[in-house]
Amino acid sequence: MREIFDAELKALGEDLQAMSRKVEQAITSAGIALATADLGLAEQVIVDDLAIDELERHLDERCIHLLAQQQPVATDLRIVVSALRMSATLERMGDLARHVAQVARGRYPRQAVPQSLSGTFAEMHEAAVRVARRMTTLLETRDLAVAESIESDDDLLDALHADTFTAMLGGEWSATPQQTIDVTLLGRYYERFGDHGVSIAQRVVYLVTGDLTKGEPTNLRAH
Amino acid sequence: MREIFDAELKALGEDLQAMSRKVEQAITSAGIALATADLGLAEQVIVDDLAIDELERHLDERCIHLLAQQQPVATDLRIVVSALRMSATLERMGDLARHVAQVARGRYPRQAVPQSLSGTFAEMHEAAVRVARRMTTLLETRDLAVAESIESDDDLLDALHADTFTAMLGGEWSATPQQTIDVTLLGRYYERFGDHGVSIAQRVVYLVTGDLTKGEPTNLRAH
Repeated sequence: MREIFDAELKALGEDLQAMSRKVEQAITSAGIALATADLGLAEQVIVDDLAIDELERHLDERCIHLLAQQQPVATDLRIVVSALRMSATLERMGDLARHVAQVARGRYPRQAVPQSLSGTFAEMHEAAVRVARRMTTLLETRDLAVAESIESDDDLLDALHADTFTAMLGGEWSATPQQTIDVTLLGRYYERFGDHGVSIAQRVVYLVTGDLTKGEPTNLRAH
Repeated sequence: MREIFDAELKALGEDLQAMSRKVEQAITSAGIALATADLGLAEQVIVDDLAIDELERHLDERCIHLLAQQQPVATDLRIVVSALRMSATLERMGDLARHVAQVARGRYPRQAVPQSLSGTFAEMHEAAVRVARRMTTLLETRDLAVAESIESDDDLLDALHADTFTAMLGGEWSATPQQTIDVTLLGRYYERFGDHGVSIAQRVVYLVTGDLTKGEPTNLRAH
């Protein structure tokens, strides 16, 4: 029984890693599509989000099957329940990447972000890509140092998000209402990438260390 | 065993209903605080969100305990897993109500929403309150007709959200960047109340009818 269970847990871990890699790809492509007004790439992200949704369904079914067949308790049970929650978080990150791509597509052939904020959004993109890449690494290696670096990129994303408000509320802001709307929504999407990355990181920390004060981060979603 | 399990399932259902009532209260108060620039009420919503977060943790622990002690399979297992997901959705709705309250608090003593859109936001508030109230009723009664009415209020929220963009992008829009930012974010929060309400509704429909095409609404979160 234990061998079967371990094999299934391993498969569950691999599913999460595969899903995380897809999310990493989506965030990377969405940011490039946004920065370069690349319609084809934006549409690719939008279509590919269906595959992320499908991975979530697959992963959830695997969890339910595992709960029914193996009836795990204690730590094993918490691993499966955490996997269910991480798949929901990863799916949501995929949605956010799709939202970024939809803004890029909606403004094509123009760029959604005004010139004055293109540097800020380039930094947000880089931080979000790092969050996603490290999330995959963390799921693969369970190296807790990686979790910390995700938290610092989340702090950076919060600071960059605040910078967008400072820019829009300063006297120099001469953008159109459409640009103000787009910057507001895009800033929020990028900030949420950080929150969700930290949520994943803290769940992995919780599974590795059993530290409830760091894990089970319900309150993180409160950002 | 079955009697204990049924008693625990009943308690689980009651927890969800209690959480839904708290969310209903939060949405109601947040909307009033926003419309009337009521600082005290806004702060109450912000503080009360901690209780909703605590209810989620309590509910999740109950689910994990139930999975470990009762080892449910088939429909029973799906009920517990659905409860886990519904608690996460309700917690998220509490966060959104808090976000609305935070906008109201941030603009006090002024009103966040410009006069020209106060009617639209009054309608969004009413629709969101109906969604939340019916969500509670649905969890209490499992009356599937209620699920349909939640979907129509979600459609109404989407239409009202679109109206806010039409207003901001029309030539008549003379609001400040702060107002444009606030309307953009508030519109999104209200639209998300509808999405989450539909997600809850479809999970209940799924549990009652077993209809997978209507339930397990992963794709709903894609809105």
